[in-house]
Amino acid sequence: MTDAPMTAPAATATAGEVISRYLTEQAGNFLRALPQAVGEAGARPGALPSLNSPAGSGGTLELLRAVRRVGGALHTFGAVFEPGWAHESRAELRWLLNLLAQEPAYQRRSARLLAAVDSLSGAAPAGEGGPGMLAGHQGAPKARALLDRQLTLARTRAHSTVLQELRSARLHALADRMTLLVGEAPLVEPARGKAGEVLPSQAAAAFAALGAAVQALPLRRAATAYQGDALHRLGGAEPAGPAVVVPPQGRTGDADSALAADDAPWHRVRILLKRARYALEVCGRPGDQLVELDRVLDCHQEAADAAVTAATAARTPRITPATAYVLGVVHADQRLEVEAARFAFGSRWPELPLSLDGWEGPPGQRMG
Amino acid sequence: MTDAPMTAPAATATAGEVISRYLTEQAGNFLRALPQAVGEAGARPGALPSLNSPAGSGGTLELLRAVRRVGGALHTFGAVFEPGWAHESRAELRWLLNLLAQEPAYQRRSARLLAAVDSLSGAAPAGEGGPGMLAGHQGAPKARALLDRQLTLARTRAHSTVLQELRSARLHALADRMTLLVGEAPLVEPARGKAGEVLPSQAAAAFAALGAAVQALPLRRAATAYQGDALHRLGGAEPAGPAVVVPPQGRTGDADSALAADDAPWHRVRILLKRARYALEVCGRPGDQLVELDRVLDCHQEAADAAVTAATAARTPRITPATAYVLGVVHADQRLEVEAARFAFGSRWPELPLSLDGWEGPPGQRMG
Repeated sequence: MTDAPMTAPAATATAGEVISRYLTEQAGNFLRALPQAVGEAGARPGALPSLNSPAGSGGTLELLRAVRRVGGALHTFGAVFEPGWAHESRAELRWLLNLLAQEPAYQRRSARLLAAVDSLSGAAPAGEGGPGMLAGHQGAPKARALLDRQLTLARTRAHSTVLQELRSARLHALADRMTLLVGEAPLVEPARGKAGEVLPSQAAAAFAALGAAVQALPLRRAATAYQGDALHRLGGAEPAGPAVVVPPQGRTGDADSALAADDAPWHRVRILLKRARYALEVCGRPGDQLVELDRVLDCHQEAADAAVTAATAARTPRITPATAYVLGVVHADQRLEVEAARFAFGSRWPELPLSLDGWEGPPGQRMG
Repeated sequence: MTDAPMTAPAATATAGEVISRYLTEQAGNFLRALPQAVGEAGARPGALPSLNSPAGSGGTLELLRAVRRVGGALHTFGAVFEPGWAHESRAELRWLLNLLAQEPAYQRRSARLLAAVDSLSGAAPAGEGGPGMLAGHQGAPKARALLDRQLTLARTRAHSTVLQELRSARLHALADRMTLLVGEAPLVEPARGKAGEVLPSQAAAAFAALGAAVQALPLRRAATAYQGDALHRLGGAEPAGPAVVVPPQGRTGDADSALAADDAPWHRVRILLKRARYALEVCGRPGDQLVELDRVLDCHQEAADAAVTAATAARTPRITPATAYVLGVVHADQRLEVEAARFAFGSRWPELPLSLDGWEGPPGQRMG
C-alpha cells in the first residue's frame, strides 16, 4: 500500500496534528469514493452471474479502504478522541464495512472456487501446467455450475441489501461524520501532547495485542509444512471466543464448528494485524512486511470461507455422487490453501523486524 | 536397515568373494523365510477383514527383503554373473516380488485409508489432536465401510493367488536357484578382479542412473511447500514410459492417466534408489540417508495408490452423495500426502553427501 504516503511528522507536531492529517486524508478518500460506490451499485445488475462486472471495482474498494483505515485509527489512537463520538463512529464504520464487504467477498470467493474447479479438472487456461486430479471428471461441470449458482444467489442478495442501505439515513449520517473528520476531528486533551510521545505508546498497544494473539497460534506447527493441520487435528473442539457460531443442527455441525473454532484465532490475528498496519501508516512508518502478512491472512480467510461454501454446496439435496465427490475434493483443496497460508505466515512472522521491542516509534521521534 | 551388517571387504578380496558373501547371506535369509511365509499364508484366512492378522508379518516380509536385495545385486553387479542365469533369476525374483508384495500392500493401504477417514472424521484415538474437517459427517462411516469392503476383497484375491503359487513348481525352482546362490553363485571373469576396482564402477552406474532419474523430477518445485502439484498442474498428459497404463474408458480415465503419468517418474526413482541402497550394502558402506529417502518414496507410492483406491471407490454405483463427498476429501488428502512426500524428498535430496562424485567406492578400496 504505497498510496497513503504520510509525510513524516515533524518532531514538534502534536499527536492531534498528526492524527488529524491522517484522518483528513482518509475521510477525503471516503467522501470522494462514496458517490462513486453508490453509482456503481446502482448501475450494476446484482443478478448478473458474470465475473466481468467486478462487484468490488473502483469506488467500493476505495470506500472499503478508507473505512478500514479510519476505523483502525479511531480504535488504536482512541485516547486522543472524544470517547463517545469515537465509539459511535467505529460502530457505524463497522456497519458500513460489513455491508459493503460482502458483495466483493462473494465475488472473490466465486472466482477462487471456480478457478479451483477449473484447475483441478484441467480446464484452466493453457500455459498453467498440466491437468488436475479431476481432469475430465463428469462431476466437475456440475459442481462448478452448482457453486456458481449458489454464490451468484448470495451475491445478488448482498447486492440488494447494499442498494437498500446506500440511500439510507444511516449512511447519510455516517457521511456527515466523515465530513466532520476533515480537519475537525473531535480531539481531547492527550492530542496536545507531542506526536512522538503520545502516538508510539498507543501504537505499541496495538502491536502488543497482535503479538499476544500470534503467540496463541500454533505457529511452530504451522511453520512445518504438510502437518495436515487444517484438514486433520483441528485446534480443539471448544469454541474459541464469540466469533464461533455453533450451528443448531447436530451432526453436520460438528465439522463446521470445529473448523470455525480452528480458524477463529487466525481471523482474529488478521484483524489485529490490519490495525497494527494502519497504526504504522498513521505514524508514517513503512510497513511492507505487515502488508505482505495481511495479504497472507486475507488468503487464509478467503480460503476458509470458500471451504465452507464447498461443504455447504455438498449438502444440497439431490446432487449426484459425482458432484458431491468433486465438492469433497474442492473442500479439501481449500483447506489445503488454508494450511498453506498458515505455513506462509508461520515462516515469515519470526523474521519480522518490527516486534514490539523493535518498534521504536514514529520517525518524528527518531529524528528528534 | 541395520540388519545387513557387511563386514568391510578386505583390500585383497575379489569382487566375486565380496558379492558371493552378500548373496550367501541374502539367499540364506530367503531360504529360512520361505517355509515360514508359506506357513503363514496357509494359516491365514485370506477373507478376514481384521487388521489384527497382518498379512505382511514375519516370514513374508523377510522373504520380500531378501528377494529385493538379491534382485538388486544381480541387476547392479550383473557383469560378474553368468548373464543368462542372472537374467532368468531376476525375472523369477520379480515374479515372486509381485506375487508376495500385493497382500501386504493392500493391508497397508487399508490401514492408511481407514486411518485417514478416522482422522478426518475425528474418530482417531484420543490424544491425537482435535476433530478433522469431516467430524461427525454422515458419509464418513459409509465411506469407511466401502473402502474396507473393497480392500478386503482385493486382499482376499491377492491371498488366493499367493496360496495357489506358493506350492507351484515355479516357486520350487526359484528356491533351488537360491540354494545354488549359497556359496556357489555362477560368476564370470570380471569376478576375479579386485573388489575395490570392479564393484565401485558398477555401483557408480546405479548411482548415475538414480541421479539422472532424479534430475528429471520437478525437484525445485517439489521443494517449495504447497505448490499443489500433486492435485493441480500434474506433470503433462503424455504417458511417461511403459509404467503408465492408460485405462480404456474415456472420461474418468483422463484424471487416472494424468495422475499415473505424474507419479511414474517418482515411482521409477524409488526403484533406482532401492538399487543404489542395496549396492551400498554390497560394498559395506553406510546408507542411512538412502534408507530414509527410500522410506519417503515408499510413502509416496502408498499414498498415490491409496488415492487411486479412493477415486475408484467413488465410482461405485449407487453410493450416496455424502459417501462420495467423503471419498473426494480422502482422495485429495492422499494426493496431499503424495505432495508432502515429494516435498520431503525435494528438501533432503540436495543435502545427500553421496552424489555420484562423492561416492568413492567401498571401504576396501579406501582403506587400501
